[in-house]
This record gives sequence, structure tokens and C-alpha cells, in this order.
Amino acid sequence: MSSVYLGLLHYPIYNKNNETVATAVTNFDIHDIARVARTYDIGRYFIIHPLDSQIELVHEVLGYWRQGYGAQYNPDRHDALSVVETVRTVAECVQTITEEHGKAPLIVTTDARQFANSISYIALRKKMAAEQQPCLLLFGTGWGIERSVMSQADYILEPVLGRGEYNHLSVRSAVSIILDRLLGESWWLRQE
Amino acid sequence: MSSVYLGLLHYPIYNKNNETVATAVTNFDIHDIARVARTYDIGRYFIIHPLDSQIELVHEVLGYWRQGYGAQYNPDRHDALSVVETVRTVAECVQTITEEHGKAPLIVTTDARQFANSISYIALRKKMAAEQQPCLLLFGTGWGIERSVMSQADYILEPVLGRGEYNHLSVRSAVSIILDRLLGESWWLRQE
Repeated sequence: MSSVYLGLLHYPIYNKNNETVATAVTNFDIHDIARVARTYDIGRYFIIHPLDSQIELVHEVLGYWRQGYGAQYNPDRHDALSVVETVRTVAECVQTITEEHGKAPLIVTTDARQFANSISYIALRKKMAAEQQPCLLLFGTGWGIERSVMSQADYILEPVLGRGEYNHLSVRSAVSIILDRLLGESWWLRQE
Repeated sequence: MSSVYLGLLHYPIYNKNNETVATAVTNFDIHDIARVARTYDIGRYFIIHPLDSQIELVHEVLGYWRQGYGAQYNPDRHDALSVVETVRTVAECVQTITEEHGKAPLIVTTDARQFANSISYIALRKKMAAEQQPCLLLFGTGWGIERSVMSQADYILEPVLGRGEYNHLSVRSAVSIILDRLLGESWWLRQE
């Protein structure tokens, strides 16, 4: 089992007015991110939500594709969703990983600003390749992860910079790009 | 205006039984890909569909976010969707770009297999940076772009490789990763 884990946080999250809220789970977050997680061989993709009703919704989707008609209709989707697991809190997520590895994971989050504990993509890529310790990559929904969770992170990844001023990727795009930078092939070393 | 363009093709496309079909436009393809396109400063994001009903659906979504309540509610989304344009065919897409630049674009597609005219990410990245000619990056929906369109491509990009066997990214993830490889910052050159 790979020692890199992914967590998608739905609480505590800022909304656009900077209030702390729980966000709704979306179907595309489940599917798109599970497929990226499988492509980059992530240990598990944790959907983190404190509310029973939202956890049940995720389980309904998973049931359809894992055991229901979806599993026959599209086996690739069945495969992708095998990595998804639900937990209520970041603490429960950390505990699950710790029990599996006998070591607590490094917690790495993402943010649009620079912090004292910011880490570059190349530095984290090398750290992950060394695989001394499991790593939990935590992504936020809504307008970003609340400060209380951010302050628990060992490292904060630098923002993804494109070209120009606009910088509002969907979380699905951000996860895709960041996993490719951290775990993808070294395509830039290829000979032309 | 940037000389790199994006096209999302809905016909002619293979379905899972290798039949040629037109696929349905999805709301997340419009939003997620527009946001990536703006982040990487793409000239325009063409949604290519031959059917009036599907083109009208796209225009309804665009209307809401460009002129309707959505424009006030979320100006970033208004900004992202400003790059979206609809065309009926690849030929119409190529014509629009050619009229703007006075030069026909290079057509680059993606595929999971190697071809005689395959191009590496690093080679295309350098070619784009030189900006001698506009470039149309064409992505497929469904189970991939039909052979008749593939054969018109000047180059076919190598597949995105993750880790392991699974290789079924959503088109939204594939676009995100590929634009980051071709147009993102040179993050691998950063000092740790």
C-alpha cells in the first residue's frame, strides 16, 4: 500500500464571506478525484465530513459503483472508487493512517499564500520518494480550509501558478495538477 | 491574446462499444475546464458540438454566469467563462483561429497509444514558448476521438503516466495536468 494519502475536507471550511461552514459533498469530487488518486497510486482517498446525511450520500454512490449495476457497466469506475473511504474528522483520518503504518503521517495542506512552513513541489516530491513517513495531503472545498486546521499542518504547499493573474482552479483540477507534480513521471527529463 | 487554444470535442467520439457517437455536454466540463483555461491564459476554450440543442444549453449556462445573477454572485466565474466559445466542428474552430492569426494552428491531440507523430511534453512546451504558430489542443470526451479527426493532427501528445496500471483520468483532470505540463511554471527547477 502506497504511503501517500489524500483527504478532501468539508468542515471546517470558509465560505465566501469568511464564515466557517460545512460544505456539501459533490458527485464530481468523488469520481474525478478517485480516478486521479488511482492513477497516481494513492493509498486511500478520504472524504472528510462530520454529517451523517452527507456520509450516507457518499456511501450510496460508492454502493452503486462498487456492488450495484455500475460495477458491471464500468469496471474502471469500480476500480477507481475502491480507494474512497469516509471519515468524520481530520483526527480520525490521521488515526486510521497511523494505525496502518505505526507512524503518524506528515500533514501537508495547500494555500494561495506563502507561510513560514511553505514547501516547494520539488522538495516534497523528494521527501515522498524517500518514503520514511506516510503523508496526508489535505485539500479544502469552498473558499479554503479554516485556520485551526491549517495551523496543524507540518507543511503548506506553495500555490499552483499558471500564467497571469487568474488563480481560481477547481479543487478537482488542483488535486490533479498537484499529484502529477508530486508523483507523476519526470517528463521534463525526457529527451525530445 | 495567447496563441494556445483549447477544444473539447463531442463528435465524432467513440463510445465504450467503439461506435461513433455525439456525447452530451456536461456542466462540470464547462466550468472546470474554463477555470483551468483562464489560469493558464489560454486564448479561447472552444466547446465543439454539432447539435443546436447542446449549443443552446452551453449558451444558457454562459448567459447566467456572464450576464445573469451568477456574474454578481461570483465574478471569478464570470471571468473564467469569458474564454468559452461554441463551434459546430473542428473545421470551424480551425477557421476562427486562422482568421485571428493569419496562420492556421498546429493541431495537437492526446491519446493513450504511441504514434509515428507522437510528441513529448518537453518538446511541445518549447515549441509553444517559441510561439511561431498558434496551437489548438484538442481533447476528446467519451471513449476518445474518432480516427478521422486523429489523422488530421500534426502531433499526438504522449499519454499522461501516473504510477501503476490504472490510467482512466477524467477529461477535466487530463486537461488540468496537460496544461500545467505545457504552460505552468518550471517548478522542477526551483531550489529546495
